Amino acid sequence: MVIKHSSEVEPQKLMDGAVLKRVFIAKDQAPTFVMRLFTLQPNAATPFHSHAWEHEVFVVEGKLKVVCEKGETIVEKGHFVYVAPNELHQFVNVSEGPSSFICVVPKEGEV
Amino acid sequence: MVIKHSSEVEPQKLMDGAVLKRVFIAKDQAPTFVMRLFTLQPNAATPFHSHAWEHEVFVVEGKLKVVCEKGETIVEKGHFVYVAPNELHQFVNVSEGPSSFICVVPKEGEV
Repeated sequence: MVIKHSSEVEPQKLMDGAVLKRVFIAKDQAPTFVMRLFTLQPNAATPFHSHAWEHEVFVVEGKLKVVCEKGETIVEKGHFVYVAPNELHQFVNVSEGPSSFICVVPKEGEV
Repeated sequence: MVIKHSSEVEPQKLMDGAVLKRVFIAKDQAPTFVMRLFTLQPNAATPFHSHAWEHEVFVVEGKLKVVCEKGETIVEKGHFVYVAPNELHQFVNVSEGPSSFICVVPKEGEV
């Protein structure tokens, strides 16, 4: 068993630090999937992109705009987002403070 | 893409309603793994048990005691727990209100 508080996990700084990514269990220790915590600074956005694997996302704090080909949806704490394989998607922080979400991917999606 | 607030997901009532389980995406729609939200009423506990698949857990609210063969650890919002395959484990709500956590399992673990 591994127990850690997210604040004990050293973040990877993406997009000049506008996006922090914390990987809880390394890909080589995870049998099937990998859970990550992303924290976006205000106005920060992940790329509008797609990939062959799915995302399962749970919003932990803040308010985010989820963009897909069909439009946009605002989500906040307690929302779940399922992104299917090959579906275009983007997350944009639209709150005044940081927004965080759990994002789980199959092992091959953790690069 | 599927977007839902947890409050829109009908919970399964386990242990006479002391434990609520919300499955965000049905097992037959999930390519690899399944994300669930568990909510424990005060003093409620999951069984002390083990199984062949791993858990990756993220605490969303409240305070929980995590029990394993080696002892007990208190966790709260922001804590991550990795339970390896075949490892004995139990979650006990030790707060005065409900405690909730995300628990992700590979598809075969969603029964």
